[in-house]
Amino acid sequence: MAETPIRFGILGCAHIAQTVSRAICLSPNSTLYAVGSRSFEKAKKFSEANGFPPSAKIYGSYEALLDDPDVDVVYVPLPTSLHLRWVVLAAEKKKHVLLEKPVALNVAELDEMIKACEVNGVQFMDGTMWMHHPRTTKMEEIIYDPERFGNIKTVHSIFSYGGGDDFLRNNIRVKPDLDGLGALGDAGWYCIRAILWAAEYELPKTVTALREPVLNEAGVILACGSSLQWEDGKTATFHCSFLANLAMDITVLGTTGTLHVHDFVIPHEENTASFLAAAKTGYWELVTGMSAIPSQHVITTDLPQEVYMVTEFSRLVKSIKDGGSKPEGKWPSISRKTQLVVDAVKASIENGFEPVQVRV
Amino acid sequence: MAETPIRFGILGCAHIAQTVSRAICLSPNSTLYAVGSRSFEKAKKFSEANGFPPSAKIYGSYEALLDDPDVDVVYVPLPTSLHLRWVVLAAEKKKHVLLEKPVALNVAELDEMIKACEVNGVQFMDGTMWMHHPRTTKMEEIIYDPERFGNIKTVHSIFSYGGGDDFLRNNIRVKPDLDGLGALGDAGWYCIRAILWAAEYELPKTVTALREPVLNEAGVILACGSSLQWEDGKTATFHCSFLANLAMDITVLGTTGTLHVHDFVIPHEENTASFLAAAKTGYWELVTGMSAIPSQHVITTDLPQEVYMVTEFSRLVKSIKDGGSKPEGKWPSISRKTQLVVDAVKASIENGFEPVQVRV
Repeated sequence: MAETPIRFGILGCAHIAQTVSRAICLSPNSTLYAVGSRSFEKAKKFSEANGFPPSAKIYGSYEALLDDPDVDVVYVPLPTSLHLRWVVLAAEKKKHVLLEKPVALNVAELDEMIKACEVNGVQFMDGTMWMHHPRTTKMEEIIYDPERFGNIKTVHSIFSYGGGDDFLRNNIRVKPDLDGLGALGDAGWYCIRAILWAAEYELPKTVTALREPVLNEAGVILACGSSLQWEDGKTATFHCSFLANLAMDITVLGTTGTLHVHDFVIPHEENTASFLAAAKTGYWELVTGMSAIPSQHVITTDLPQEVYMVTEFSRLVKSIKDGGSKPEGKWPSISRKTQLVVDAVKASIENGFEPVQVRV
Repeated sequence: MAETPIRFGILGCAHIAQTVSRAICLSPNSTLYAVGSRSFEKAKKFSEANGFPPSAKIYGSYEALLDDPDVDVVYVPLPTSLHLRWVVLAAEKKKHVLLEKPVALNVAELDEMIKACEVNGVQFMDGTMWMHHPRTTKMEEIIYDPERFGNIKTVHSIFSYGGGDDFLRNNIRVKPDLDGLGALGDAGWYCIRAILWAAEYELPKTVTALREPVLNEAGVILACGSSLQWEDGKTATFHCSFLANLAMDITVLGTTGTLHVHDFVIPHEENTASFLAAAKTGYWELVTGMSAIPSQHVITTDLPQEVYMVTEFSRLVKSIKDGGSKPEGKWPSISRKTQLVVDAVKASIENGFEPVQVRV
């Protein structure tokens, strides 16, 4: 007998919800069960356009979707300013929560959401999809191996994309009342996660924002950067922007290893992803070339990375539902660490680029 | 009748002088004419090991080499602390000067050297060899093209290599009395030049060093980083280090273009060099892939990049000698700008990471 797939309800019809709906369709242990929008018509259209089965439930409000006892998981792609309200309510209704990033406007909000999930025994995970790509595991095998890579000394990450005039006027990501963290919350979230990932989730002791961030008239960040400092001398920098051509870089330097990836957020191609790695690189005798130059590692996948994320989430939910497992604490923990650094960068920008202690 | 090649005298027997001696041998308009060292025996051995013709002059002192009226060019690979004395003397003896970087301990010293070269009508150029690689011209065609690349928004550069225990104890680059600028003067010089190059040599208005540089017991920088800020909102960051595996990156982000190069200082292979460039990159509809992804550009060369540098230098010298041309002002100008930023980074480290105005 086939296992019953985990039933997803989609809260709202954001553009990113199309990508994740497709992933739910393609995930072997997940199913599109319901969609809710403030407009029934919009929800209906969304379900028709995004592969929902004819039996799918269409709801004209978020509350109605949350009241459906057969929804296992709520996927929340709403603007950040709405997360607190709807995540807490979803958790109270015993729904597991897959939450788009940035997860919260600040860590205090996130703590309320995480607490609600803990109290109600539901899984929390943010939608940082590249974490689940098989390439990420391959890169971990290299950079977490001290024999090969040595100690990590510095990390640099970039996520930029050219928003364009319409985006910069109208997108929710530049509206103070919707996604008030702007490029820091959107693109910067990925950079900060990449840096924490490379540091095996050890928090930096201080964060010092770089000077000359770009803000719009409403004070929302359109481009900024930061440096990060760890107790052990490790450092990192990142740059996030809505104002430059697309770039998605992680560069990790260890004492004996180098890693480069240029499309870490979204692989350039859906079914292959690559990175460059080198270990113990040296000069030729006359310093006109190198030994042990970077080699390209190519990972081929059958499915887009969002499917791996959805499938992992459903696996966790299934073992909670069926086996009495507890929710996996890793996921809320790394969301929280990411948010702590987001908050510290914002605080450093606001305090004139002084270093900010990262509070735990 | 073949043109008389430009005659080079090598001042000292530094390791890098082997690379440049080979380049002079391979350069069609240049010849190895003399080598001078404080030890005649050392100079003799160097000439025998590095392709000098049997007729080459061997000198047991730097002064004697400078007194030889047939030396056209002096190549100076001495420790930085000796540059001022020997470059000024060489210029006074009417020798053109090809000077290893870092060119000076500070811009005041460099100004004395440049002035001596100006007064004596000799060409000054620093040995930043990658500037002369044909790849650099190809990259300029892309990043300097506003139709393709838009406006440059941010630049990031890394140059690190693992010095190793012996290097970190004994190399001149970590000795305060020899190369007191440490990793900033050595590896950082290249990063700063790369950033200025990308900015078409427009100086930043301010430089703000990143926190937590690593210094040795004598106070010499082993690793550091900085951010740079321009009037027009452009920004840059770099990281230079003797403490991490080899990496040589330039990343340039324009409003519509992206450029990546991973071996800008010394191409991984002597006869081919590549870079990645993209323009107007976009997402697929469901944001699971990209259009206009970076393409790899490969440049094949017959000669190592140092030969292009030497040949260009000899071409300039020849047109001064033969045609009454004036020395090319571009080269001392960009050396000076690089040194100004080096000095500003050092000043920012010393003043507690406050922004430092870059003085012109």
